[in-house]
Amino acid sequence: MAQDNLTAMLYKPKDMQLVQTPIPQIADDEVLLRMDCVGICGSDVHYWQSGACGHFVLKEPMIMGHEASGVVAKIGAKVKTLKVGDRVAIEPGVPCRYCEFCKTGRYHLCPDIQFCATPPYHGNLVRYYKHAADFCYKLPDHVSMEEGALLEPLSVAVHACRRGGVNAGHNVMVLGAGPIGLLTMLTARAMGASKILVTDVLQSRLDFAKKLGADATLLVTRDASEPDLVRQVHELLGNHPDVSFDASGANATVRMCMMATKSGGVAVLVGMGSPEQTVPLAGALAREVDIRGIFRYVNEYPIALSMVAGGQIDVKPLVTHHFSMEETLQAYEVARQGAGIKVMIHVQPRDANNPKKF
Amino acid sequence: MAQDNLTAMLYKPKDMQLVQTPIPQIADDEVLLRMDCVGICGSDVHYWQSGACGHFVLKEPMIMGHEASGVVAKIGAKVKTLKVGDRVAIEPGVPCRYCEFCKTGRYHLCPDIQFCATPPYHGNLVRYYKHAADFCYKLPDHVSMEEGALLEPLSVAVHACRRGGVNAGHNVMVLGAGPIGLLTMLTARAMGASKILVTDVLQSRLDFAKKLGADATLLVTRDASEPDLVRQVHELLGNHPDVSFDASGANATVRMCMMATKSGGVAVLVGMGSPEQTVPLAGALAREVDIRGIFRYVNEYPIALSMVAGGQIDVKPLVTHHFSMEETLQAYEVARQGAGIKVMIHVQPRDANNPKKF
Amino acid sequence: MAQDNLTAMLYKPKDMQLVQTPIPQIADDEVLLRMDCVGICGSDVHYWQSGACGHFVLKEPMIMGHEASGVVAKIGAKVKTLKVGDRVAIEPGVPCRYCEFCKTGRYHLCPDIQFCATPPYHGNLVRYYKHAADFCYKLPDHVSMEEGALLEPLSVAVHACRRGGVNAGHNVMVLGAGPIGLLTMLTARAMGASKILVTDVLQSRLDFAKKLGADATLLVTRDASEPDLVRQVHELLGNHPDVSFDASGANATVRMCMMATKSGGVAVLVGMGSPEQTVPLAGALAREVDIRGIFRYVNEYPIALSMVAGGQIDVKPLVTHHFSMEETLQAYEVARQGAGIKVMIHVQPRDANNPKKF
Amino acid sequence: MAQDNLTAMLYKPKDMQLVQTPIPQIADDEVLLRMDCVGICGSDVHYWQSGACGHFVLKEPMIMGHEASGVVAKIGAKVKTLKVGDRVAIEPGVPCRYCEFCKTGRYHLCPDIQFCATPPYHGNLVRYYKHAADFCYKLPDHVSMEEGALLEPLSVAVHACRRGGVNAGHNVMVLGAGPIGLLTMLTARAMGASKILVTDVLQSRLDFAKKLGADATLLVTRDASEPDLVRQVHELLGNHPDVSFDASGANATVRMCMMATKSGGVAVLVGMGSPEQTVPLAGALAREVDIRGIFRYVNEYPIALSMVAGGQIDVKPLVTHHFSMEETLQAYEVARQGAGIKVMIHVQPRDANNPKKF
Repeated sequence: MAQDNLTAMLYKPKDMQLVQTPIPQIADDEVLLRMDCVGICGSDVHYWQSGACGHFVLKEPMIMGHEASGVVAKIGAKVKTLKVGDRVAIEPGVPCRYCEFCKTGRYHLCPDIQFCATPPYHGNLVRYYKHAADFCYKLPDHVSMEEGALLEPLSVAVHACRRGGVNAGHNVMVLGAGPIGLLTMLTARAMGASKILVTDVLQSRLDFAKKLGADATLLVTRDASEPDLVRQVHELLGNHPDVSFDASGANATVRMCMMATKSGGVAVLVGMGSPEQTVPLAGALAREVDIRGIFRYVNEYPIALSMVAGGQIDVKPLVTHHFSMEETLQAYEVARQGAGIKVMIHVQPRDANNPKKF
Repeated sequence: MAQDNLTAMLYKPKDMQLVQTPIPQIADDEVLLRMDCVGICGSDVHYWQSGACGHFVLKEPMIMGHEASGVVAKIGAKVKTLKVGDRVAIEPGVPCRYCEFCKTGRYHLCPDIQFCATPPYHGNLVRYYKHAADFCYKLPDHVSMEEGALLEPLSVAVHACRRGGVNAGHNVMVLGAGPIGLLTMLTARAMGASKILVTDVLQSRLDFAKKLGADATLLVTRDASEPDLVRQVHELLGNHPDVSFDASGANATVRMCMMATKSGGVAVLVGMGSPEQTVPLAGALAREVDIRGIFRYVNEYPIALSMVAGGQIDVKPLVTHHFSMEETLQAYEVARQGAGIKVMIHVQPRDANNPKKF
Repeated sequence: MAQDNLTAMLYKPKDMQLVQTPIPQIADDEVLLRMDCVGICGSDVHYWQSGACGHFVLKEPMIMGHEASGVVAKIGAKVKTLKVGDRVAIEPGVPCRYCEFCKTGRYHLCPDIQFCATPPYHGNLVRYYKHAADFCYKLPDHVSMEEGALLEPLSVAVHACRRGGVNAGHNVMVLGAGPIGLLTMLTARAMGASKILVTDVLQSRLDFAKKLGADATLLVTRDASEPDLVRQVHELLGNHPDVSFDASGANATVRMCMMATKSGGVAVLVGMGSPEQTVPLAGALAREVDIRGIFRYVNEYPIALSMVAGGQIDVKPLVTHHFSMEETLQAYEVARQGAGIKVMIHVQPRDANNPKKF
Repeated sequence: MAQDNLTAMLYKPKDMQLVQTPIPQIADDEVLLRMDCVGICGSDVHYWQSGACGHFVLKEPMIMGHEASGVVAKIGAKVKTLKVGDRVAIEPGVPCRYCEFCKTGRYHLCPDIQFCATPPYHGNLVRYYKHAADFCYKLPDHVSMEEGALLEPLSVAVHACRRGGVNAGHNVMVLGAGPIGLLTMLTARAMGASKILVTDVLQSRLDFAKKLGADATLLVTRDASEPDLVRQVHELLGNHPDVSFDASGANATVRMCMMATKSGGVAVLVGMGSPEQTVPLAGALAREVDIRGIFRYVNEYPIALSMVAGGQIDVKPLVTHHFSMEETLQAYEVARQGAGIKVMIHVQPRDANNPKKF
């Protein structure tokens, strides 16, 4: 086994370094992975810049990375579902398996879940990483390592759409055309939404959304009045949205979700926003618009993989930037500036582990 | 047919008068009812005092009353489900029967629903009142006219519990021990809740809740800290509430619902509160606590009747005051002062239409 | 108004004639329709050949036709949602609007529903036909009259998929590649199914299914053993089907649904088959495979229309034969022989009412 | 630690013996239990008499017993939720924790579940038994060891009622008044059923059902006609049952469930019956009566415990016979003869571990 174990370690806010760490030992139900692709997520940039994300706070040095794929390098004694050489997508959270949440199929709410690059747990932007075998999903040959890494944000979108109950014939509104908004749009379509409106404050993002299949887009300006926006949404959709997604987290979009959604519909708040918010709650609730948040995903990795493997969702266009692991700091800087959609770090030379080129 | 048609007419805020109005003509699918019992609801007092409730505003004189029971006096040509003399509970809202909401089983959201004593529609605090026959539910002999009138607030509670998904073994929190809070508690119990905590700002109401079956009560004082209250709720229940009901509408209780409910649980906001509210939304949503409002009820009158007729819910203890129709103003004054729980107006002499005394 | 009202009347088994009948008068909530396209369904052929379908039996002469579209020729006094000249798809069943089923959103189970060409109710294979306005759905310009008529069998497929709970990432099995099986396959795909297997006893039908998008097909021969077939299904899908549809009604396919579906999955029996059947019930139920039937559709016409209008489902390839109304008997004969997939009768000259040619 | 480990071992059909076996060693996540109460279930008698139950077949000697409670005698290194001396109910199936079923909250369908006294896994009719700590539920002081053992069949009933979707106001039919039928009746009531009809072929069982709260009972005789029985069910309930439970497994009751249940309702088949059955499937499915089986229970032990601890369900009257462990063969003989309802074996002297006498 190689000795090089280059590791992207966040020591404190704004202090990320590439260092060497020991290659980990695996337990009987784990596999050792030679990492391949690791995407950069908004939360990664948050930790890097501020040392915190929501109520999670960096206290010890932490290895970054959680949107990832790799190749199985070694398997634990009890592992039967994988073998050395298997190309896998890595679901980054491993729950306790014993609590009420784990037993009732909502393991993402397990209070003891160990989630990559969420303090105090290390991530997988590193040459060698160990993980529970059953949270590694074997990729078919025609699915690339990059697609494998993208299953992470796609699982967020699938979870959001399942929580929203997106179904055949639905009118859907997506507020925010960043990676999660776009993936939510693609997933809603794949689940049967017949009309999808996407809004954003940047025309360039809306143009990209349109190219990916949005039926209508709405450019929101800072001085737009709320009733006007609601009216425009209803006109552009030709109906009130059955399900609305806030993929931005701004107070303005949270409010729009509550006001524009159809009576009896669902408003899914994907971006959480600030802890305290002033919102027109009574009006939404009196129309029985249900308000639902999401926390990561649960049992959605296999779905995301099936959708990508089956061709129902094409995630490849979202990757706009590629960097080698040695260029990690540069990659993070590009992600911080918000250029493009998704920045991908290649721990191995690009396409090295892809049976075909994509 | 009698000529007396005494009517409680609200002319403008604080100006309710007992006057005579014509006895209405019925359509083929309607019945004429000789009214018996009419309860007073918080919204009635609102209209009386301010001429408005939520976004509904009194513009023309309006007959009051919507929590009611009566006796069939005449049936329309096509009515087959009722006959003259039948004692019935009256579901006060009649929807259009044609729109998407009516067809999908959510007729309470029908934009054209005609609802008693909600402007511009008249109520039924009157001697003779006509109503769609299929929204009148025949009472078995052992269910009293008062119980029939109480099916209205009970239907709100049943709707709240069904929206909250109350189920066997649940821990339930009810914030506010007024009529709706108490009925929600009774309904949650009848649907299988195994532990119910009730909170209020008045010890007398909590004592009453305890008598009706609350497992635990919590007196909330104005200066209590939120984290302390949350901790007390969890201690008293021995668990986090699976479903929480705000039956108060105060910002403090809306906030408590969001903070104290179990991860993955449901917070049902029954009392709507002010249009704009500052709430700790992100914290609740990140724990996937779903936030649901309710608007009246839908298909719950038959359930409420079955629960009362079958003995699963005893609503009788809630009626603390009785008045004749001639004493309507006095009854409203008692309701306004908030003494007791439920004030009942008897359009006919009390118990006149009850086959047995209760 | 024209006087010609050519009508396809079934007098008794095997005795269908084209005759003249009076143009009907409309009620306030109805529209008069100049009929355009009427498809032929298996049940139509059943009535024609045997005078019965299931427990419905022809007792009086009955006008045929229920898969239909038309143009509004006249509107009732209260109709606000349509105007003369509107091109509409016709949902053929109009329920009573008063019963428990109508109020709870399951109006298809209304015992008093009046359904076209189901005794004793007339159908719409006639020049002029009246219908409840709210069960006529205005077609956008780019949806053809033929597509409008095809919304009827498509609604059956949408109902089947919604009853089966088809969702993102599902593996789906469809037994029978007739019109309903094919539409179920297309709908399941549009709702997110990632892998679909279709079986039939005819290779030609499987070839057509493949062309329409089936991922795998299985030709079933009469002498195939059940365990072998189950194994082949699992191999071809690479998994056990989450949801299975029997669109055939044969005992062999009903049995296959029960045996091959994944534990905890759903077997939807679309074709009903004979009244008494010998089935391996215990084995399916002990694996918690839920068994669900379907009866027509409910609230699915708007969904079917949205899916066709939005381009999620293309129904046009299913129409393999076209006839004018004057050729009705010839059209029925073709349908009876089972050639092709869907036979369409044009009451007006073909494409006369389509704004664009298709 | 004591050396006596008396064990009820089934060697082959009709050959059960009390022998000594070694006290087991526990793993880090397990506890050693000093067993207290063990009930006898129909399946136990099956194994004893025939060496098989369904497709499970006895191949090696097997320790009997799965309806059980005990006292914690020793805890594994990682166990934090229990301590020595805790009185617990034992959920007898421990799943693999890794498969799709375990992760999606349906661990009862886990193909690798290890279930007490189901070949090849040993049961707990033994002095000392080890079990996964998280499948042991601490009993409050006021819940007896017998009640703890009864949580097992009660969990079956709770699972059946949850699968059936029993809800407030429902009319419920229970076919078969044995232990599972009676527990299903009690659970359905606790979940809000307002009217419950119980049928059986023995009047004595119906009398007992009546005493436990059945609203109506129907004695079924062998020569009764099906249409007559259906009519009687509907008359006695005053309605069609929303949910029906077959707790018998006979073909006649399976058929009755399909025929008598309300259109759009649910027929839950709790008793599985013979592998191949002739049933009127099409009639039930065309009325959209859903047919659901159950397999044991999942996440229902905590619910069952809450319902018993909270007083919503009283299971104590069901225990009609008590035996010491030394009288095991005699106890099984009584169970085999079907006298009484539930036979309880006391591994410890009766009431030894109950803080209060019951």
